[in-house]
Amino acid sequence: MDAETSEQMMDATYRALCEHGYADLTMQRIADESSVSKATFHYHFDTKEELLNAFLDHLIEEFERRLACEASDPRERLDAFLDAIFTPAEDTDVSPIPLMELKSQAPYHDAYRERFVEMDDRLREVVATAVRDGIESGQFDDADPEEVAQFIVTAINGAHIREVALGEDPNETRRLVEEYLERRLGYTSEVVA
Amino acid sequence: MDAETSEQMMDATYRALCEHGYADLTMQRIADESSVSKATFHYHFDTKEELLNAFLDHLIEEFERRLACEASDPRERLDAFLDAIFTPAEDTDVSPIPLMELKSQAPYHDAYRERFVEMDDRLREVVATAVRDGIESGQFDDADPEEVAQFIVTAINGAHIREVALGEDPNETRRLVEEYLERRLGYTSEVVA
Repeated sequence: MDAETSEQMMDATYRALCEHGYADLTMQRIADESSVSKATFHYHFDTKEELLNAFLDHLIEEFERRLACEASDPRERLDAFLDAIFTPAEDTDVSPIPLMELKSQAPYHDAYRERFVEMDDRLREVVATAVRDGIESGQFDDADPEEVAQFIVTAINGAHIREVALGEDPNETRRLVEEYLERRLGYTSEVVA
Repeated sequence: MDAETSEQMMDATYRALCEHGYADLTMQRIADESSVSKATFHYHFDTKEELLNAFLDHLIEEFERRLACEASDPRERLDAFLDAIFTPAEDTDVSPIPLMELKSQAPYHDAYRERFVEMDDRLREVVATAVRDGIESGQFDDADPEEVAQFIVTAINGAHIREVALGEDPNETRRLVEEYLERRLGYTSEVVA
């Protein structure tokens, strides 16, 4: 399948999820959100689950692109990571709801769960590597990089469900995460309000 | 309605949610999980949403009972709070999935959201009060009680979605929360592994 068709299918999946929710999602409704025919969707994906697996892979790739940060400075890398998580991409209208609906379905779909585990490993790895590099270079106080990463990513997961369930601004959590990093790693955040 | 009928209806709602998921939940399927007739369900609740509101109220009440801790010692109160959150009640078989499904539906149902906001206020209040009391009595180091409470409850929310989406043991988060409290409030946890 060419890149443009693929992009159209993924965008349509996202829009259909936003509009109808996971429970009422059908291939027809997804096709209706694009100029791609339902037959073409069925040609590439046997089931709705297969299409949603491809959609999650697509999200992971987009996420990887946003996480890619060339900075060598560990502090800058942590800031870029928090930007990628908490500041929505400018060219996309991102709702946290579709991803949360798919997460709540993970107990019933191993293929979804595998992808969330992969995303989680990647997030923790980015943070742990930056923390480790900062400790080795003497910029950060000593700490267990994996523990710091696990706590930060758990707080990020909390921010996601708080945004969906309570309508809370995720920047509430960003502020607390920055304060935690400052205290734990002994640096002063640039972004304190 | 008498207490026994109410209890039966709430138990049936929980079981039906576990078995069919939110998307496929109907009054008939809920009634099928109890000896209460579908007519009786309809007599008390006009819609599925009303029944689920009552179910969330029921969860909040149960939760309040578990959070009730008579200890005057702030440290003991924080430990009892973490037990109530992380250690499932012995007499109930609690799955984290139904509550997460309802949370992911909150953007579409103001009545659900109101109840989650109420639950969240209560959780943060219990932690903030214990932290404030401990600081005033000189047991804890100085800290902003509301900030500590917000961070702890956000991590608890993160543990909930991690259990559902990744299959992670919530005690991973408990350990990190205890380490954070120890560091932030200057006390040594009894429960460190």
